[in-house]
Amino acid sequence: MDILTLLKDLREGRTTVEAAHGRITAALREQPFEDLGFAKVDHHRTVRQGFPEVVLGLGKTPDQVAAISSHIVGRGNPLLVTRADEAAWEAVKAEVPAAEYHAIARCITVPGPIAPGKGTIVLCSAGTSDLPVAEEAGVTAELLGNTVDRIYDVGVAGIHRLLSQRDRLASARVVIVVAGMEGALPSVVAGMVGVPVIAVPTSIGYGASFGGVAALLGMLNSCANGVSVVNIDNGYGAGCIASMINHL
Amino acid sequence: MDILTLLKDLREGRTTVEAAHGRITAALREQPFEDLGFAKVDHHRTVRQGFPEVVLGLGKTPDQVAAISSHIVGRGNPLLVTRADEAAWEAVKAEVPAAEYHAIARCITVPGPIAPGKGTIVLCSAGTSDLPVAEEAGVTAELLGNTVDRIYDVGVAGIHRLLSQRDRLASARVVIVVAGMEGALPSVVAGMVGVPVIAVPTSIGYGASFGGVAALLGMLNSCANGVSVVNIDNGYGAGCIASMINHL
Amino acid sequence: MDILTLLKDLREGRTTVEAAHGRITAALREQPFEDLGFAKVDHHRTVRQGFPEVVLGLGKTPDQVAAISSHIVGRGNPLLVTRADEAAWEAVKAEVPAAEYHAIARCITVPGPIAPGKGTIVLCSAGTSDLPVAEEAGVTAELLGNTVDRIYDVGVAGIHRLLSQRDRLASARVVIVVAGMEGALPSVVAGMVGVPVIAVPTSIGYGASFGGVAALLGMLNSCANGVSVVNIDNGYGAGCIASMINHL
Amino acid sequence: MDILTLLKDLREGRTTVEAAHGRITAALREQPFEDLGFAKVDHHRTVRQGFPEVVLGLGKTPDQVAAISSHIVGRGNPLLVTRADEAAWEAVKAEVPAAEYHAIARCITVPGPIAPGKGTIVLCSAGTSDLPVAEEAGVTAELLGNTVDRIYDVGVAGIHRLLSQRDRLASARVVIVVAGMEGALPSVVAGMVGVPVIAVPTSIGYGASFGGVAALLGMLNSCANGVSVVNIDNGYGAGCIASMINHL
Amino acid sequence: MDILTLLKDLREGRTTVEAAHGRITAALREQPFEDLGFAKVDHHRTVRQGFPEVVLGLGKTPDQVAAISSHIVGRGNPLLVTRADEAAWEAVKAEVPAAEYHAIARCITVPGPIAPGKGTIVLCSAGTSDLPVAEEAGVTAELLGNTVDRIYDVGVAGIHRLLSQRDRLASARVVIVVAGMEGALPSVVAGMVGVPVIAVPTSIGYGASFGGVAALLGMLNSCANGVSVVNIDNGYGAGCIASMINHL
Amino acid sequence: MDILTLLKDLREGRTTVEAAHGRITAALREQPFEDLGFAKVDHHRTVRQGFPEVVLGLGKTPDQVAAISSHIVGRGNPLLVTRADEAAWEAVKAEVPAAEYHAIARCITVPGPIAPGKGTIVLCSAGTSDLPVAEEAGVTAELLGNTVDRIYDVGVAGIHRLLSQRDRLASARVVIVVAGMEGALPSVVAGMVGVPVIAVPTSIGYGASFGGVAALLGMLNSCANGVSVVNIDNGYGAGCIASMINHL
Amino acid sequence: MDILTLLKDLREGRTTVEAAHGRITAALREQPFEDLGFAKVDHHRTVRQGFPEVVLGLGKTPDQVAAISSHIVGRGNPLLVTRADEAAWEAVKAEVPAAEYHAIARCITVPGPIAPGKGTIVLCSAGTSDLPVAEEAGVTAELLGNTVDRIYDVGVAGIHRLLSQRDRLASARVVIVVAGMEGALPSVVAGMVGVPVIAVPTSIGYGASFGGVAALLGMLNSCANGVSVVNIDNGYGAGCIASMINHL
Amino acid sequence: MDILTLLKDLREGRTTVEAAHGRITAALREQPFEDLGFAKVDHHRTVRQGFPEVVLGLGKTPDQVAAISSHIVGRGNPLLVTRADEAAWEAVKAEVPAAEYHAIARCITVPGPIAPGKGTIVLCSAGTSDLPVAEEAGVTAELLGNTVDRIYDVGVAGIHRLLSQRDRLASARVVIVVAGMEGALPSVVAGMVGVPVIAVPTSIGYGASFGGVAALLGMLNSCANGVSVVNIDNGYGAGCIASMINHL
Repeated sequence: MDILTLLKDLREGRTTVEAAHGRITAALREQPFEDLGFAKVDHHRTVRQGFPEVVLGLGKTPDQVAAISSHIVGRGNPLLVTRADEAAWEAVKAEVPAAEYHAIARCITVPGPIAPGKGTIVLCSAGTSDLPVAEEAGVTAELLGNTVDRIYDVGVAGIHRLLSQRDRLASARVVIVVAGMEGALPSVVAGMVGVPVIAVPTSIGYGASFGGVAALLGMLNSCANGVSVVNIDNGYGAGCIASMINHL
Repeated sequence: MDILTLLKDLREGRTTVEAAHGRITAALREQPFEDLGFAKVDHHRTVRQGFPEVVLGLGKTPDQVAAISSHIVGRGNPLLVTRADEAAWEAVKAEVPAAEYHAIARCITVPGPIAPGKGTIVLCSAGTSDLPVAEEAGVTAELLGNTVDRIYDVGVAGIHRLLSQRDRLASARVVIVVAGMEGALPSVVAGMVGVPVIAVPTSIGYGASFGGVAALLGMLNSCANGVSVVNIDNGYGAGCIASMINHL
Repeated sequence: MDILTLLKDLREGRTTVEAAHGRITAALREQPFEDLGFAKVDHHRTVRQGFPEVVLGLGKTPDQVAAISSHIVGRGNPLLVTRADEAAWEAVKAEVPAAEYHAIARCITVPGPIAPGKGTIVLCSAGTSDLPVAEEAGVTAELLGNTVDRIYDVGVAGIHRLLSQRDRLASARVVIVVAGMEGALPSVVAGMVGVPVIAVPTSIGYGASFGGVAALLGMLNSCANGVSVVNIDNGYGAGCIASMINHL
Repeated sequence: MDILTLLKDLREGRTTVEAAHGRITAALREQPFEDLGFAKVDHHRTVRQGFPEVVLGLGKTPDQVAAISSHIVGRGNPLLVTRADEAAWEAVKAEVPAAEYHAIARCITVPGPIAPGKGTIVLCSAGTSDLPVAEEAGVTAELLGNTVDRIYDVGVAGIHRLLSQRDRLASARVVIVVAGMEGALPSVVAGMVGVPVIAVPTSIGYGASFGGVAALLGMLNSCANGVSVVNIDNGYGAGCIASMINHL
Repeated sequence: MDILTLLKDLREGRTTVEAAHGRITAALREQPFEDLGFAKVDHHRTVRQGFPEVVLGLGKTPDQVAAISSHIVGRGNPLLVTRADEAAWEAVKAEVPAAEYHAIARCITVPGPIAPGKGTIVLCSAGTSDLPVAEEAGVTAELLGNTVDRIYDVGVAGIHRLLSQRDRLASARVVIVVAGMEGALPSVVAGMVGVPVIAVPTSIGYGASFGGVAALLGMLNSCANGVSVVNIDNGYGAGCIASMINHL
Repeated sequence: MDILTLLKDLREGRTTVEAAHGRITAALREQPFEDLGFAKVDHHRTVRQGFPEVVLGLGKTPDQVAAISSHIVGRGNPLLVTRADEAAWEAVKAEVPAAEYHAIARCITVPGPIAPGKGTIVLCSAGTSDLPVAEEAGVTAELLGNTVDRIYDVGVAGIHRLLSQRDRLASARVVIVVAGMEGALPSVVAGMVGVPVIAVPTSIGYGASFGGVAALLGMLNSCANGVSVVNIDNGYGAGCIASMINHL
Repeated sequence: MDILTLLKDLREGRTTVEAAHGRITAALREQPFEDLGFAKVDHHRTVRQGFPEVVLGLGKTPDQVAAISSHIVGRGNPLLVTRADEAAWEAVKAEVPAAEYHAIARCITVPGPIAPGKGTIVLCSAGTSDLPVAEEAGVTAELLGNTVDRIYDVGVAGIHRLLSQRDRLASARVVIVVAGMEGALPSVVAGMVGVPVIAVPTSIGYGASFGGVAALLGMLNSCANGVSVVNIDNGYGAGCIASMINHL
Repeated sequence: MDILTLLKDLREGRTTVEAAHGRITAALREQPFEDLGFAKVDHHRTVRQGFPEVVLGLGKTPDQVAAISSHIVGRGNPLLVTRADEAAWEAVKAEVPAAEYHAIARCITVPGPIAPGKGTIVLCSAGTSDLPVAEEAGVTAELLGNTVDRIYDVGVAGIHRLLSQRDRLASARVVIVVAGMEGALPSVVAGMVGVPVIAVPTSIGYGASFGGVAALLGMLNSCANGVSVVNIDNGYGAGCIASMINHL
């Protein structure tokens, strides 16, 4: 709504006081979301932030996930559901035939038209056990229009495995590093590149890993430049931030 | 060193086996740093990562800070010392006449030729007490060639103060948000923009703020897209990452 | 028992020393509760505090829950059982035919005559996953005689969703805010209203949410006026306090 | 600003399009605060929430505290500075001659016209060492127009001391309970009254009190009805909430 | 073995050098336990400490529990197995026909001749949910020869329930207090009696009870005299200490 | 007050209704403590619990400590002030000439007539650095009428030092064990005796001792029978409990 | 690859510039591991560190464990899989017929030619429940070529059980001590021997053992010389380090 | 003492019953330490463990440190005092003229005849700020007879600095790695060598380093073989263990 045009219309009699009042009031009250009762689906996010509302499957019933998914796809938006277990996938599949399930990543997706990222996102992980989180990041970044280059199982205890990948690291516009246990990989990687590194601690480990706290603290205390951190196991968040950076 | 050229020289007699052996071996052993005994100063970092080695003043004696600073500036590199108290400043000032002290930010700087960032870094802080950390981020980003727009004292408890700055937020290529206590500001800001938000928890607060842990956890658990986090009070880290992104 | 009257009766021979002694002693020993062996049911609480003894289902067997419920209803008191799973509900249903089950809130209720609250309790929740805790608060407040206005899924990452509800917030006599993850919603809401805000952290989240600790700390450190906090997931407690305030 | 009137004026030529545009835009941008650079002072809070902006002295320089105080008093608002040490008091005293210092409570106040609370706020503390926090609550509540009845040193280890104050407790419209160490007092008090209890843990104690965490957890886990909790040592917050409730 | 007698026998030819050497060496090597390979059963403990070796069922297989139990009873010692689930009970029952199972306390016992305690152990618990831990303490104390007086469900939120039991409390030689949630009961009880109070925190509660940590901290910080604390849920330990004291 | 006698007096005219009413009411309101405003001194504790009110110096001003001390001694009660620094001692000395200062234990005492304990309290400490806490326990136990046998510097890393003291340990009626760092000493001692062991963790140590938490946890998890625990550095508490047990 | 020989060959025409370039480049890129996609198996570790790559079963699917195991054994290397549950064992058994399962230790092994250790590794455990972790250490050390002497169930609460094993302890070249609960055993053992002690905390215990944290802290704070610590339940790590030391 | 010889002497009349009794009893009671009242100095430790009793200066008064030092040196033993501040050094210097002070390491030493270690101990540290802890380890190892090769300031964020030291690392018989912040260095080093790595976390860092906890957790969770860990800042412990290993 262009307020200036509206006011001129009013001044020149092309609209009434009541109509102008209504339109201004409406603008102030406009709800750029759809209210499903248990959820308010934000259809304008694509416009506002360049990607669609994403559904966190954790803590929602399969029916809730399916209903929200259906509304998002119904508006022509791309879909990403994270932390989707088999039950959620069954429910969504029935409502959204175009949906696809990424079992390791535990994600449901429906692609949509999204502007491509400018460079490559390199995605490193420290160990085989970190795969689910790494894949959540990878699937997210790909859905959001990015090229992803995966370098897996390059933990710091065998540093030669990482050093042999120098060229691929050097080609990154942004790097995601996923690691559990001591969480040292982001520091080493960040010392080898000159681009932002998004570090994702995972809950992999036992004993004094405290469900990912050791890795999280290691990453927050990184002595390398360019490392910022997301929540434990938050592969989605890392993929999303990396995509934002890659679209700048 | 161009290995291919060297080998051709050898093949064609322009160099000897011994010389070639020496140069290859040297390349493998090359130390792109200067060893001061108590510290190894990394003079190649500007080449490798686009910005100079930065000196963390915390835990170093004034003499150590001054010696490292002197070596960095002596090579023609720009200088940034963080967590520099008055004593460190006195020591550096005597060795590096060109140095400047930013008292609130507790930083010592000597500018140098650095490529300018592409857009504006918006720097928000929640409260007056967060200033030292915010300024450390601001001074860092400016030294690294960026334009910084400061929006201070816009905590979420008076949300209208933040909402009145929508236009400035919208102009950001990347946003730094500094907040203590409950650390809620990054979530709200990230919901208003479509660019990466670097969140910096501060140790401001008392009681259950636990020296910044409450703010740190709040930021790690942000439900908004695009928020990544650095260590408590790590203004330098945030400024550095924001600059990296702004130079992409 | 009116001690003065009793003493006058004694003085004037209308009662005996032994009877007076017995009544005074009894008053000092009076047990305003009923002893079931494993539990002491407090039947006088309605008189003393304006609402009945509430049964926390957690950690009690279905039989214990049913037995206590039956005694409470048998005295004509209203009933509220919280944290009641299906097994508890089956056991209570068999003993108390008038009971009703609120599945999302996990509560069993039998209404009773309770004085109505003076105004409206507005009940906000940040996300769909917070519903069970929010509903526990809502069911509690309604059973205790209050009108409850629910505003759900208004998390701070899409602040416009909350701002669009300004009018409803403004109508509250007291507000309950339920939120997990970073727990920032109470601060924003408290900045928009001038009435007490009861904040309820939920255990929703993963990783560094630490089962609700992140939200709890965020709420305790709120920089807004008027925010007090109850235990993680304690919807009942919030509903009860809000009702107390609303009956003042 | 009455939008409807403005639009009618425009329609009938009593104002111009440009003037109307300006006034509407201004309304949307209106800043109900004064920007001091390092702080944005919120002068409308009295209108919006019924009490003035309060200055948290912690983490601010004496000059900053004095400057903010001067602006608040200059607008005719009452003043409350909390966590004000001697240095802050010296600086404020020089700028605001009407100010008064409460040494135990570490508060600076200038009274102003505030509506009186409806009943009495009873303020209990467990031990002599809790006095500074209790007094911060008391001074706050009194400045905000309330009558405060102090019951000090009634810790649960000598329960008869508390029981002897039944009558005063019974007269409360709202109760504040301040306690360190095990933080058990709010549970006992809440079991004796039928009104809201605001619990304030203090950092008093040693060893496993962990700076007030033991008391905080004790209060959050209270098995009594009506107890909500504020941050450790947050006497101001408790006084403010109690006043809000007492003005309902 | 009396060394002096032995040496005299040797001097006077009543024994040989070799025999004396053997007996002295044996005394130094004597193993007052029986080695089952996976466990060393300490049969002398009754002599040394006045009660038999107790079997902690937690972390042992049913077969291991049954084998150890069988060896203990085979020597004529009384038996106490704690944390015994149904499977352990089945295994022990088959090996030790005289054994008895206490389902709520999760204990297996075989009584034996033990000296009676001198007074009464009063056993208080705060809530119905604390029963398993309280009963573990009670069964332990009774097996060890003590009279136990149980006062259950006397939490501090209804202090009159506790006050009505003053006489029974006053009759105690030692008191055990079992409580979860805020763990305030031991402080109140200790203020009412003049004998030692053994406090047992339980893991009952949710949210910020942190599996009994809140109760544990509350008890450690008790401001009352005479309170000492055992591990969370350690009913056995409390019963054992109370019995030791009651036998002095 | 004998209620029965009073009532008979009333019945037979030896007292008036008003007088009887007054005396009964007074009995219900009787305050067995003296109110100093900032503190309620409990003069009846000697009667009720067998020892006087003890003053915790921590968190009180020297003047407050001196005033309370003076009132206690003025009633003829013995005095114990713990955590008394030099300033507190100066203040008390001026008011209470009979007072004595125990510098290592940081205690002020005035002895009084107290019944002697029945046996010996053995007081062990693990290291030289634990002396202040051990002495606080020792001074407390001696003031309360007990014989104390000190065995210092017998840490478990040189177990032969402890084993050489078997005879003295065997003579104990109750044992206090003070230890920092890993807190293993109480377990070893408790395995060597058959009497209650009161374990006192100290804040001695560094790094992962976390101010005594490591020792506290070690003691709470003791696998030995008879160990109960008090707060970190709570030598007073241990001395008090040991005395209670030794007077049974 | 011998660079000097290669260069001489080039100089003398026995190879081409391109071939030499290729071989040098390849040497820089050489990958001493085999890439399975989800894992990079390090076949050179035996050469580099004296023992083969070990597979941590935790967090890997049975198929992944079997595939990695098959590749390791296929190269003629010995195999050790830790944290292998029954499902992993079933999958490995099908692929690697020579494999053996150690049920208590939860390990799968295939022996191989490894140099024998020089002395004896003594392996102590505090309680029966610590067996799985102790056996993981024992199986690891034996596979790596060491003689292991097991001393089980010698917790510090019955110190005579440990003292009776002095001779076996004295024969150790290195000692592994496995303990849960208070974790005191390593301190006592280290005080009795003059060789390195590797301490392994276990997650055995309940309540304030916090999943092994109490034992971990106890071991880190050991006042005895020669104690170093590995992660909670990390029997493998202890066996591996002990073997390294025993092979020096 | 040879028991067999003694007994033969007795049998053959070369000694009396009383003399034999006395000598056997004395052997059982022998105290291989000297009791200073506040400390028991263990003079036999050199015999028993191959190195002398070490004095932890922390928590002892300068006089106590000097007295213990004097007794140790007086017996001809070498001396090591750790955590010795200037005051302790002044006191020791006055009593022990031969003593030497290592200011960075905060150690006091008097060398003595100790067998030399077999190989080289390589001592790595991550940053300049870790020097005090690294030097404590170095001084300890040197006093105990070892050759120490120091590689300082080789943090993982500039991995080329560490890689350039491959040869020196390869020459180690045991490695000590000292690191604060994220504590990643031990993992990388352990992956490069085949000998035991003793990891020492330091309290260097800020914010989420939590006084060394982040580094400690990182080291405990190391995914590399051969890493064991000592307490935060425990340079002495690491030097001592490394020496033990180096003397095997």
